[in-house]
Amino acid sequence: MQEPDASLPRTLIGELSGKVGKTVLIQGWIDVRRDQGKMVFFDFRDRSGKVQGVVLPNSEAMENAKETRGEYVVSVEGIVNERPAKNIQAGKQNGDIELEVKRIEILAAAASLPFDMSASAFEFDLTTQLDNRALLLRHPRLQAIFKVQAVIIDSFREYLKSQDFFEFQAPAITPATAEGGAEVFQVNYFDKKAYLTQSPQLYKQIVMTAFERVFSVNKIFRAEPSATTRHLTEVVSLDAEFGFIQSWRDVRDMSEETVRYILSEVGKRCAAELAFLGAELPVMIKETPTFSLTEAFEKLGVPADKDLNPEQERALCELVKNETGSDFVYVYGYPTRQKPFYVYPNPEQPEFNEGMDLLCRGVEWLSGGRRINKYDQLMEHVREWNMDPEKVSMFLEAFKYGAPPEGGFALGAERMTMQILGLKNIREATLFPRDMHRIDMLLSEDNQEQKS
Amino acid sequence: MQEPDASLPRTLIGELSGKVGKTVLIQGWIDVRRDQGKMVFFDFRDRSGKVQGVVLPNSEAMENAKETRGEYVVSVEGIVNERPAKNIQAGKQNGDIELEVKRIEILAAAASLPFDMSASAFEFDLTTQLDNRALLLRHPRLQAIFKVQAVIIDSFREYLKSQDFFEFQAPAITPATAEGGAEVFQVNYFDKKAYLTQSPQLYKQIVMTAFERVFSVNKIFRAEPSATTRHLTEVVSLDAEFGFIQSWRDVRDMSEETVRYILSEVGKRCAAELAFLGAELPVMIKETPTFSLTEAFEKLGVPADKDLNPEQERALCELVKNETGSDFVYVYGYPTRQKPFYVYPNPEQPEFNEGMDLLCRGVEWLSGGRRINKYDQLMEHVREWNMDPEKVSMFLEAFKYGAPPEGGFALGAERMTMQILGLKNIREATLFPRDMHRIDMLLSEDNQEQKS
Repeated sequence: MQEPDASLPRTLIGELSGKVGKTVLIQGWIDVRRDQGKMVFFDFRDRSGKVQGVVLPNSEAMENAKETRGEYVVSVEGIVNERPAKNIQAGKQNGDIELEVKRIEILAAAASLPFDMSASAFEFDLTTQLDNRALLLRHPRLQAIFKVQAVIIDSFREYLKSQDFFEFQAPAITPATAEGGAEVFQVNYFDKKAYLTQSPQLYKQIVMTAFERVFSVNKIFRAEPSATTRHLTEVVSLDAEFGFIQSWRDVRDMSEETVRYILSEVGKRCAAELAFLGAELPVMIKETPTFSLTEAFEKLGVPADKDLNPEQERALCELVKNETGSDFVYVYGYPTRQKPFYVYPNPEQPEFNEGMDLLCRGVEWLSGGRRINKYDQLMEHVREWNMDPEKVSMFLEAFKYGAPPEGGFALGAERMTMQILGLKNIREATLFPRDMHRIDMLLSEDNQEQKS
Repeated sequence: MQEPDASLPRTLIGELSGKVGKTVLIQGWIDVRRDQGKMVFFDFRDRSGKVQGVVLPNSEAMENAKETRGEYVVSVEGIVNERPAKNIQAGKQNGDIELEVKRIEILAAAASLPFDMSASAFEFDLTTQLDNRALLLRHPRLQAIFKVQAVIIDSFREYLKSQDFFEFQAPAITPATAEGGAEVFQVNYFDKKAYLTQSPQLYKQIVMTAFERVFSVNKIFRAEPSATTRHLTEVVSLDAEFGFIQSWRDVRDMSEETVRYILSEVGKRCAAELAFLGAELPVMIKETPTFSLTEAFEKLGVPADKDLNPEQERALCELVKNETGSDFVYVYGYPTRQKPFYVYPNPEQPEFNEGMDLLCRGVEWLSGGRRINKYDQLMEHVREWNMDPEKVSMFLEAFKYGAPPEGGFALGAERMTMQILGLKNIREATLFPRDMHRIDMLLSEDNQEQKS
């Protein structure tokens, strides 16, 4: 096997265009191989992009070129040539250059692919997609989706850091939950029981009482026995909480600016990915239209109820879009007793609270609102909600010793990814989706034995 | 109650020094209150620091000043005055100014404190610390610890992003584990079983085959029934993995530069916190001394064994420190069969692998090394390690279709925090520590009933 020139450092494929006429070493995968007998054409791929390579007749590299196929990992020495004018592919990365391959070193072989991996052919049903997730992560579609997701998470953190928020790590294992509601997963915790967290809500409020402005990026878990296109058992929750607000409107504003920043960063840093996926960022106008729940029902011309149903959420978003151009709309002021004990009731109208949701294109993106900060009022709610104060004793302790007027909000990273990109199933927006039927592979009784 | 001037925006306490002579509004907690009868002195605290305030005789603010005590949350209007020369406290934040309080609005009352919270008196035993964690998070000692931890995590991400690493979210819920070894937590997963991840190892290798350079900040879980000063059941793992290495030394180098960057950022961004905690950053010299396990035993003058024991780790670190000034030392080349199946055996000496550990001040900080990237060799190891290939099928799939020579490393955020700060117990380095006896509160049979 020919060894490449050891003195040549690796050049990333994305940097080849500045190296015309030079001998370079690239390392990556064979994206496509077209054997034309006397010549072999390649598309090579690394983390920075793709480039076409050609092995000319009688090249030293021919023997190895013939041996390879798609997904082989190779180290390739060659000369960067300009393409003749007629072969230039405008608007394509490295469309004006080509690598004349001099040597190929095979770093790792690949089995022959179970299906066509080329970009134009993404027509896999969901089961095929998930059964082959490890391999399909190399597909440009999945690469694009998860790059967008990484930017969403990164820019969430970035914005809140710029606003002086402190990052904390919320726990996954919790004691007996106080909130109830949706089902929780039980963990066998030595000889006792523990649970997987459904939300860092009470923890972020505790940490807020010490650090004033806090955020976290952490997993939450839901044991709802649903296998819809929107249900996962494990998701990434983007959470923020902050003190010294004047009213819930400060929470609204902070959440709006957070989402605005995320959208703007995705637009800037993922332009190519959005174009590839045919996705259009939702429009956020200068001031997102904001209605109380009562006003929302009036606007829709339907009788008031406890909450908007999915159809009403879609109708409201459509109305607002037509009137203002905004893809977003805030709804606030839900019936107090329909929501958790910590949500702040409107002092002028205590049957409604100062909770809020941000809808986009018919779907809820973000929830939040003002919380109760005064201990006596919290204790009243604990009693009225019929809760055991022992189970929230740590939370109550934080508020017993003085907590400022405060609020916060939370977004789901997978849901936001799905909505921005217009994906049909949340499993597409999760690297390793978990649902009631699948953890990596479909669950069966067979794979339930733990290896001893 | 006096309302503060609504037109005054909040000034952070950290920005008061530029406002001498001005009337300002600050909002925060009463850190200390000294009632001298005719006058009341305060230390006010917000996220940006502390300032002294004084309520002069006959001030409108006196009534509320008398009503407050430590940890009350207040909104305070006052004039920023220079202190007379004799009262200046040099080197202390706002030591040259004082707020002449004109009005105090009480935003929230606080119960009387169960103990003295002042900075000079941190002499709580661990049980008191953990039973009062929510309140003690306001203590400057805990504030400093968790600020350092946030910077460790943030700068880990920052460095790897600068090196073109892609951030991914590793799952917490896993199917039947393949690695075995330490105990895992079992989750009741609908009518089936699942487990909490012990390490994102196999997932990060999978994602590496698609994104080439990857990192994650995620929770891992250990069900070891130990309650030592170094055991927690839930910790934050800082993981990195990257392809196209020449040898394990590239992994060594990347991990060294990552740690160097983290230390440098902690030094820059947490100088005040380090000083307050009396902590000295460990010294990392230009090239961290690096020994094979065999060499390490020779250096220690003891017979070779499977691994260094804790005493030998301490002795080696001491030797290296005395010889070179380095607080760090790498040890590589462990007996192949003592380590997991994916670790790369040294081709010239296959009984030793290319795994490595970074020790600091006698303790392991980081583990990593080169991994096997060729499918056939991996399959051989799967057989030799007597594993069920079905249980690692997704991982094997990633490598079946071509994976570059690669390696990676992992650090524990809590352990690093503990070691940098010289804390005696890892529970001090965790916001909400979980161990076999405690999840927030001590576990008892009583608190094990889930609220319905």
